[in-house]
Parts: sequence; C-alpha cells; structure tokens
Amino acid sequence: MHNVAVIGASGFTGAEFLRLCANHPNLNVVIATAQTHADELVANLFPNLAATYGNMRFIPHNAELVDTVTEKADVVLMGLPHGHAQVLVPQLVGKVKHIIDLSADFRFRNPEIYPQWYGAEHQTPHLLDKFAFGLPELFRAELAGAELVAVAGCYVTTAALALAPLVKAKIIKPQGIIVDAASGVSGAGRTAQANTSFCTVDEDFTAYGLLNHRHTPEIQQAIATYTQIPTQVLFTPHLAPMNRGILATCYGVLNDTKATTQSALECLAQTYANEPFVVVDERLPSTKATLGSNTVHLSARVDERTQTVITIGALDNLVKGASGQGIQCANLALGLLERTGLPQAGLFG
Amino acid sequence: MHNVAVIGASGFTGAEFLRLCANHPNLNVVIATAQTHADELVANLFPNLAATYGNMRFIPHNAELVDTVTEKADVVLMGLPHGHAQVLVPQLVGKVKHIIDLSADFRFRNPEIYPQWYGAEHQTPHLLDKFAFGLPELFRAELAGAELVAVAGCYVTTAALALAPLVKAKIIKPQGIIVDAASGVSGAGRTAQANTSFCTVDEDFTAYGLLNHRHTPEIQQAIATYTQIPTQVLFTPHLAPMNRGILATCYGVLNDTKATTQSALECLAQTYANEPFVVVDERLPSTKATLGSNTVHLSARVDERTQTVITIGALDNLVKGASGQGIQCANLALGLLERTGLPQAGLFG
Amino acid sequence: MHNVAVIGASGFTGAEFLRLCANHPNLNVVIATAQTHADELVANLFPNLAATYGNMRFIPHNAELVDTVTEKADVVLMGLPHGHAQVLVPQLVGKVKHIIDLSADFRFRNPEIYPQWYGAEHQTPHLLDKFAFGLPELFRAELAGAELVAVAGCYVTTAALALAPLVKAKIIKPQGIIVDAASGVSGAGRTAQANTSFCTVDEDFTAYGLLNHRHTPEIQQAIATYTQIPTQVLFTPHLAPMNRGILATCYGVLNDTKATTQSALECLAQTYANEPFVVVDERLPSTKATLGSNTVHLSARVDERTQTVITIGALDNLVKGASGQGIQCANLALGLLERTGLPQAGLFG
Amino acid sequence: MHNVAVIGASGFTGAEFLRLCANHPNLNVVIATAQTHADELVANLFPNLAATYGNMRFIPHNAELVDTVTEKADVVLMGLPHGHAQVLVPQLVGKVKHIIDLSADFRFRNPEIYPQWYGAEHQTPHLLDKFAFGLPELFRAELAGAELVAVAGCYVTTAALALAPLVKAKIIKPQGIIVDAASGVSGAGRTAQANTSFCTVDEDFTAYGLLNHRHTPEIQQAIATYTQIPTQVLFTPHLAPMNRGILATCYGVLNDTKATTQSALECLAQTYANEPFVVVDERLPSTKATLGSNTVHLSARVDERTQTVITIGALDNLVKGASGQGIQCANLALGLLERTGLPQAGLFG
Repeated sequence: MHNVAVIGASGFTGAEFLRLCANHPNLNVVIATAQTHADELVANLFPNLAATYGNMRFIPHNAELVDTVTEKADVVLMGLPHGHAQVLVPQLVGKVKHIIDLSADFRFRNPEIYPQWYGAEHQTPHLLDKFAFGLPELFRAELAGAELVAVAGCYVTTAALALAPLVKAKIIKPQGIIVDAASGVSGAGRTAQANTSFCTVDEDFTAYGLLNHRHTPEIQQAIATYTQIPTQVLFTPHLAPMNRGILATCYGVLNDTKATTQSALECLAQTYANEPFVVVDERLPSTKATLGSNTVHLSARVDERTQTVITIGALDNLVKGASGQGIQCANLALGLLERTGLPQAGLFG
Repeated sequence: MHNVAVIGASGFTGAEFLRLCANHPNLNVVIATAQTHADELVANLFPNLAATYGNMRFIPHNAELVDTVTEKADVVLMGLPHGHAQVLVPQLVGKVKHIIDLSADFRFRNPEIYPQWYGAEHQTPHLLDKFAFGLPELFRAELAGAELVAVAGCYVTTAALALAPLVKAKIIKPQGIIVDAASGVSGAGRTAQANTSFCTVDEDFTAYGLLNHRHTPEIQQAIATYTQIPTQVLFTPHLAPMNRGILATCYGVLNDTKATTQSALECLAQTYANEPFVVVDERLPSTKATLGSNTVHLSARVDERTQTVITIGALDNLVKGASGQGIQCANLALGLLERTGLPQAGLFG
Repeated sequence: MHNVAVIGASGFTGAEFLRLCANHPNLNVVIATAQTHADELVANLFPNLAATYGNMRFIPHNAELVDTVTEKADVVLMGLPHGHAQVLVPQLVGKVKHIIDLSADFRFRNPEIYPQWYGAEHQTPHLLDKFAFGLPELFRAELAGAELVAVAGCYVTTAALALAPLVKAKIIKPQGIIVDAASGVSGAGRTAQANTSFCTVDEDFTAYGLLNHRHTPEIQQAIATYTQIPTQVLFTPHLAPMNRGILATCYGVLNDTKATTQSALECLAQTYANEPFVVVDERLPSTKATLGSNTVHLSARVDERTQTVITIGALDNLVKGASGQGIQCANLALGLLERTGLPQAGLFG
Repeated sequence: MHNVAVIGASGFTGAEFLRLCANHPNLNVVIATAQTHADELVANLFPNLAATYGNMRFIPHNAELVDTVTEKADVVLMGLPHGHAQVLVPQLVGKVKHIIDLSADFRFRNPEIYPQWYGAEHQTPHLLDKFAFGLPELFRAELAGAELVAVAGCYVTTAALALAPLVKAKIIKPQGIIVDAASGVSGAGRTAQANTSFCTVDEDFTAYGLLNHRHTPEIQQAIATYTQIPTQVLFTPHLAPMNRGILATCYGVLNDTKATTQSALECLAQTYANEPFVVVDERLPSTKATLGSNTVHLSARVDERTQTVITIGALDNLVKGASGQGIQCANLALGLLERTGLPQAGLFG
C-alpha cells in the first residue's frame, strides 16, 4: 500500500484522483489539499465522494504544506492549474518517491515552447528534462519506475493516439494535419464562469481557442517524438453540451496511395494489439462508450476521392485524458500491473 | 470464482450486470443471452464493453438455453422484462445455485397483487414465497445464502429507504403518503420508442403513469413489511432529461408533533449507521452524486407550518436501483463481503 | 407604436423582453439598461439578439437613468432582481404611463408578507396596493388599462392556474395542498454560480429551497384571492437539467367525493374556455410543448383510492412565467389585443 | 392571404412549417397531411401546436390527396423524405401556384448526381431543371416568383454560406476543402430509432456518414454554382447531444497569402451586408444563438502558420436549415417581403 497525497483536490481532476484511488487496491489517500476550499469537507464539494471520504477535509496550501506532504506521502498526485505546479514541484522533488503531475508545466522538452504558448516564463526550466511524458501507449519505456511524470493533456492523448501510428507508418503526411475536436464541459474546470454555466452551454455547440490553443504544440511534440518526424498540426477545439468526453476527428493528407481503410485500421490495431486501454474497430468511436473508463476508442478511414485520411479517437477527458492516465502512469512508476484499479468498461445508458 | 450467466443481457440492466461483473473479483461471466440480438457481438450493442467483452456474443433464447446455462453457470443474473422471468425461472430452479432476478415477477408476497397491477395471471405463483426480497438495507436477514432473490424495483428502493425508518419510528403516518419522483430515461429500457427518443425527452420534464404505476403496491409492501404497519402510498413518477438517476421526494403527514428535522435525520442516520451504500446528511440528495455507484443518498425535513415530513432519496436506477443491488444481493447469497466489486463513489463533473 | 424601456436587460428576463418586443408590432424598444454590463453591446452578451439589436448598447444605471427613461419611453418593462425594483419604481411612478415589473417587490397585498419571507423591510410599502397582479387568466379585470403591474412569479403562475379553479369549485380542499415542481436552470438567473454551472446541473435532479421558498406565500395569495378561501400550500421546487420550463405537479385532498377525473378536467376547461394561452387536455402537460411560447398546458386526475386530486401545469418560465406574461399584461394595460406579439406555439424537436 | 397545404406534416420539418405559418400574416394552413399518423390530432403528436392547431387532424395520403390539395391550396410546403417528393410533385406541378420542397429530390442540376449518391434512379429527372435552388442569400434572383423551389439542405446551407464568398474572392482554394460539422438530433427525423434514442445520444458525441454523406455533392454544387469554380469538399458530420442546431467548421487552403482574418471577415460582411438573416462577426458562432430563428451566424479566421482559412457557420437546422428557409423562399416566390413571419432572434437561456 502506497500513501498518496492529492494536491489540488478541489478541482475536477483532483476529485477524480480521489474517486479512482477509492477503488485502487494499492493507493491509500492520506491527504487532499485545496486552496479555495481549505478545511471544507470533501463531501460537501463532491457529494459523490461522501460514501468513501465522508469525514475527510481539504488541507490548506500553507507554509506547512510541503512538510506535511513529504512526511505522510510516498506518491504525490497533482491536479493544480498550470503555473502553480512549477512552483510546488521543485519543493517536493527528492522528498517524495513519485510525483505525477497533470498540469502542462513539465510536458515540453523544448524550453522555448512554454513561454511561447503560455505567455509566461517558466519558473523551473531545469526540471523539464527530468520528467517522463505520461502517455504510456506511446512512451511506456520512460515511465517504468519514473520519479517524475508530466501526464499528457486530454486533447493531446486523444489526437496523438489516433495519429501517431499512421504518421509513423507514412500513411499520413506529417504536415497539414488538422485536428478538429469536441470536448465536454468538465475540461474547462470546476470554477463557475459565464461561458460554462448551464444556460450558456446546454443545447449549444461552438468552437473556441481558434488557431492558438495550447494543446497544439503538445500534439505536435507527441507525434514528432514518437515518429521522429517533424509534424505540423492545426487544432480546433469545440465545446459540446455534455459533462465529459473528447472526440478528436483528425484529417491528414494521404501519403501512401496504396493505403486503404483496412490497412489504416490494421496499422492502429497492430500498434495497440496488447494495450488494455485501447479499442480499435471499424465501428466509429463515441465518447459515451468511454464514460468513466480509462479506455480510448480509435477508428480510421481512407478517402481515395480527396486523398485524405480520417482518424478518430474518443476518451473520457477526466479519466484517460487526465486522472486515470495519471494513475496508469503511477502504476508504471510503482511497478504495479499497469491496469490496476482502473476501469476498462464505461457507463452507458 | 463463481461462473455467472447473465440472462437478458441486451437490455440496460443486463449490460450493467456485465459492466459490474467486469470489476468484480469473484464473478466470472461465462454466458450472456439475448432474444432480439442473439449472436451479435456484445460490443456492437454496448461499445462501452468492448475492452472487457470484446469477443463475447449474445447466445440465443432457444431450446438449449436452460441446459447451457445450468451446465456452465452457478449464478444466474436475470435482466428480463416482467412476464418473461416467470416462464424461465421455474426451469432453472434447483439446477443452479442462485438466481437473482431483476424483474417484478417474484417481488410480491401476496399473490393477488401481480394480476391486479400487472393485468395478467401469474404463471408460477407457487414460487412467490420462495423468493427473498432484494433490498438488503431493510431485509438483509432473508438474503444471506438465499437461493432465489427478487430484487426490489428502482423507485421502490429509493422511496422505501427514505420512508421506512420514519414510518417505523412513527414520525410519519402510514396513510396519505405521497411519493413524487423523477427518473432518468434509462429506466424505460433500451428499446427505441417515440416517447424516449432524444428529441422528445431532451429539455422536457413530464409526469407519466399517474395513479396506477406498478411500483405503487411494491412501495407499500416494502414499507409495510419492514414496519409491520399497513401503508398507503400515492406514487407519481416523472421523466427527467438525463440518462440515469432517480430522486424521490416523499411527503408524509407528521405523526409525532415533537419530531424535528434533526430528529428525522437522526432516525435515518441511526437506521443506516453501518451501511456501506447509504449516505444520510442534511445536504439535499442529488442524482448526480450517485452516478455509476451503488450508493443511495438520503435527507429529511420536518415542516411545522404544514405538519408535513419531507424525506428524499437519490440513487442510480441502473446500479442501486437494479444491477448493482442485484450484485449486492448476490454477494449476500454467496457469502461474500457485501460490497465486493461495487463502487461507492459516483462520477461527478 | 409605444416606446419601451427595458430596465435590467442584461438578465434572462430582460433579454427575453427584448426578444419578444422584436416580434411585437406595437412595442419599440428605445432603451435597454444594465448595471454590470453597462455600455457593452447587447449582442455580445446575447448573440441571439445580434440580428435584431446589432448596434444597441446597454445604458448604465447612473444618475441620469430616470430622466433618460421618462424622456424617451412610455412603457417601462422591468427585469431587475427583487429589492432593486422597489428603489427605482417610486422614481418612475407618474412619469411614465405604464410600469410592468417582473420582480417580487410589488406582488403582495399584505405588507407583512414581504419582510417575513424576503428577510428585509420593504422600501415603499405604500405602493403595494397600487399594483395590479399580473396573472391575466385569474385577474384580468384589474389589468385593463393598469398603470402599475406586478407580474406573477413563474412557479406561482404554473401552480395557481392549475389549482385555483379546482379549489374554487371545491373539488380540492384549500388546506394541505402540496406543490411539487421542477424548473429549468434559467429560473436561477444569468449570473455564473457553482450551483448552476453545467457540470453541476447536467444529468442531475435535486430539490432546493425546501419548506421556505419565497413563492410559497405568493401561491397561497393568488389562490386565496381568486377563490376568496384561505389557502395553505407546501411548495417544493426542484432543479431539472434543462434550460427552460416549469412543471408543477400539485396534490390536493379531494373535497367533493363525487368529483372524477372528467369533472376536474371539465372544471379547468370551462374556466379557461376562451383563453388564447391555456390548453386543457387529458394529455399530460410537458414543459417541452411550451418552449418559447406564452402558453400554459394543464391537466388533472382524481384518485379515488387515496382521495387525492392531482393537477398539473407546464409553461416556459421565461415567457408565460415572466417576460411573455409581462407583455401580455402590457397589452392589457395598453388596450391592445391581449395576444399581440406573443407566440402560442412552442418549439419542439 | 394564401392557402397552404403542408405535405408530410408529421415529421419535424412539416411540424415546423405549421409552427412558422401560425405566426405568418399571409400564410393560412388549410391542410396538413401524414402517412403514418393519418387522422390523428396534430396536437397529440405535437403538443406544442395545441394552442394553434387544437382541432386539426392530419389527412391521409390516399387517392384523393392530389385533388384535395389542388382544390384547397395555392401553396404547397413539402416535408416528405427524399424519394417520396419526386413521386408526388409531378402530380401537383401546374395545378398549384407554388411548390416549396424540403427534400433532396430536386436539388441537383446534374441528373447523374442523384443516382450516384442516393443509390436509386430518379423518377422524374426532366423536372430537375425547373426547380430554383432554395438558398436565397446566394441564389435570390432565381427565387423571385419561382413556381418550384428545392430548398437547400441543412448542412449545405451552413457550409455554403460560410465558404462560398471566400472561394469566390479567391481567399480559399476550391480544392481540398474540409467541412467538419455537428448537428443536433432533430436532423435525423422524428421516427424512433436506436441511434437517436435519448440514452444513446445524451452525453455522446460521435461522427457518422464518413466519406459519403449525401450533402457532400450538394455543398460542392452550391459553391461551384455561385463561384463558377469547380469545388471539391470532404464532409464529416457529427451528432451532438442537443435538439437543434448545426455548426460547420470549414477548413480551406489559403489561396491569397495577403489575406488576413480581417479581410476574410470583411469579405463575408460585404457579401451579406443587407441580409436580414445573416450575422457576420469576429465573435464565434454558436448554435444556441440561432435556436428557433431563421438567422445564420458566420465568422472566419486566417492562420498564417499553417496557411489555412477557417470559416464557421451556425444555424437552426429546422428553421434556416429547413422550414424557415422554405418560408423565406415562399415569401420570395409570392412576392412578399422576404422576412415576413420569420423570427430573426433566437431563444437563449
């Protein structure tokens, strides 16, 4: 049994860490922290956790936080917003055995990307190359036993898993890729905002973050690192009226004129043949099939008429797109069976 | 490890049995049957199960069904519609160790109730008194080691758990009870119908089944059996635009003028003090807190002005209201720890 | 053509006044005011109004507001929150021809009710008896030519239209009435709050405001005034995952043992025989049928078994429950045909 | 006043014709027909129409249908599925003054397209060149006084209005265009099907009709006809969990390297400068802003980095994407003011 501290537990991804740990046989949550909801009952903010964390209260982000965490926990699961993780992580490095961070702070190998796309200097760029990139199906080798993990973003996981094998197999050209994706509203976080209020979002479908969404360079990096081929992606996210789920419909220029829908599907199927959390099928992926699970669904089509390849991925943005993938990385870091404690089957109906 | 046959697996409750068994350490599904979707891949009908039952096909309801089931399975979990279970169950009784039935067919102790409320003669009334009533928090004693279990209905579970302790404690009068409840659409089953199509239901709230919904006598029976007090209930269900969840807002005439909101809450809290799947709190129950879990949330209020007690319950109709409670009963029947394999925490966000 | 000022136009009911006036042949909006969004384009806050109010900006609530309004407008439509209307109205009375107020501030004839249920002294109690109560189907006589109108609340309109005729006809006893209702989220207003964020509300159904919701005394007053019989009501609102719509399921003790479902339906049908905005039918009301329209749907049932009458109403809380009824009152006040500019048919599908 | 027959009134677009005609000062519905619901009350199928068509019944599609229609109606509004219109229209041509058809049957100028994409021979190809194409903003000249109108499809209207001006201005290359769109569920029609049941669709986002959706050749034709430039489009529709609304996010290769977001927006703004039903703005279009209205919202972006133009359109698929545009065409055909009876403002909140 490993003792776990969940940092930033009042956000959706932090709460999802708590939910998943409640069903994990080897992870025991000893601390859950929060800034804005310090000292409140976890169950008052997240009544879904009342039966499992009925008496737990969020502990505050005060001067004793680092000491408390390092004293009690072996594993730190972090759900802080970007910008905040890079301040806290350096204080914890070396004092706890494993840090699994969901923020964007330590995802980029190239130190120039963060300031360029996030509009601020990075506080601890020297730590960037110490982090493994938390996307096990593409980068498992670096995650086994890892001390520091920067878990891939939700859109990044969806798009990279759908695209990387096809770019590597030279079925898709690495330039001119379009990722057109839709996300449920939980991707925007728990804080009340006009643009995520029910009466704004319900019965609405709209694009946002055109041209410069921050997951763009991360998608490019994931594919380029995996394929060793420079990659250019245009990424357009949309907001769909649902709680969870990402569907990424990706378009690439056909590179191999002999490729067919069948060969594209086989390329994906072979790449992910032994993966417990990947389903490849001709059946088109649906976000609903993934709800609450750590599974990603993939499919592909080759269009001879327009010389285009379409590859589609679907997942639950809070599980495989965040906390579930974080636990998957923690399992690898801890030497546990990779799928321990993680649901493969989604809710439906 | 127990071998399980899921009968009627192409419906929502059957599929939910499959989902929950996939996370259960002691239940191994060996057969899933279907009438209208025989021989199809389970994953084509329920893509959420593709990662766990990728190659499983529904077997048909043909002449060999009983032999196949009795040969391969120790435990039968049944998700057939009412009327169908009473035909199949007699063929299985004595040949398998445990039958857990979600239909209404074997819930009534009084053989006159079924024909009166379901409009048809019962095919096997002699079996009625051999079934335990599957609502563990109220009737646990009869479920330990039970061979035959008729799991309580979804509305019944919600209303009876909220009302029974307060009627027993004489805080609420047993006559004049009103149960006003709302359910998600999955309660109506998987079959495509005009009244459950998206464009009928979405953004709609409406009542149905006024005066004569079939859960009425079952709510009355559950409370009366538990309290040993004859009980009369008027039940009004509504359809809410959501997939899952039942909220029952129950009104009773105040019987004990010294009762207060605090004493009513304490009555509930004491009754369910050691229950792993019951949360009692002053916080008002929400269906969302229960999504995907086997937990029921309860609260209560006493209104001095109108001499009325309000008691409210919330649960996931497919889990605690059906298949989850079925597994809970199976755990009791099999002598396993009651909460084995059942999630206590719901999805949220 | 009448010149209209919409006060408090950055809220949902204010915006709905703008939408409805755009289709009204006799109402010309010359001013729309806002406190928090002063000087912003109306279309930026409400893009649905971009084609009709593309260049209009909200004017601020500053020292010149009263002068500007009285100079330019004959009719004032007010969508301010309660507490704010009672400050502004006294400054406008006598200077504009008609004030139609959607707030609760001037709805109560008895000056003791406001402080008791709203927890604050009323600023201008002397104006209370100068206001007509804006519920035309029950109180049309006082609205013809009225200078000052306090439009009935959304739950009040639904419940009172469903109950008042049956109480007057002595089919329902005036004591022991229960109003159990569900509302779409727009009833909570436009301001971003945690409890109305998409991820809190979607797929959720929950009760709120138990025992002491402020519409309670207003429902009692509406029925009692119409019937001349003192009335006691327990009111429980719920939040349903939809944008608009209220369904009120009302329970009353049967008073006339000869009453039947047919006689109850006939009582409603006769009361509203010539009403353009009331549909009485055995078909159960659904909120969806009313979406965007000024129509209320009603039905009723008599249950001999429990000696209870159920009467149900459905409407769009922002139209018949607020701004549409406000326009209906304005039409009466101005001597126009009552249904001018108001849609009778709802969206569906 | 023109007498109107609505043919196929039991479908969503037929019912929407009824709703819109109820608010139209010059159109008087005298007949509504239905195949599967003949003789039923319109209000039982569409309770939203109870206040306006309370006693109207659907008349059947029998041998007298053509005589009845030609005797009573001047204008025929058709909401039949494709394949059915081409059988009935020839019987009506010349006997009624105007036929406005929402089906795909008469949209293609090239007689080879229908059999190729719809998989069946056309019954009356000789009528194809007698139909005006019902997309007023691009083809108004041919609609004035037209006897026969084939109204553009829902996706076609959205994509063509967003793309055509930019292709014509050579800002976008005419080859390699991708239209990635999402639609609400009403686009699939009213018939109950498993893939449009609430529990399948709610909380789901999924693609469908990959590579060969039938609106593909129609989008190509609309742009090519307007621009006189051969155009190739890859079209991917998605199903979003909402009742109504289409958002089309269109990607084109940048043709004019001097083009900017501002010049692309100006191109759209100038093209639609005097259109009552088009809003062009930098603000990103949302389907919700269009709900229930005949207005389309457009925006565009130029991405220098990837040399791509994004142009986005949003509308209500049942109004501007179907029946509203049908009425707009009828207004032009009848010589009425084009926007008569059509709402410009959408519902919101």
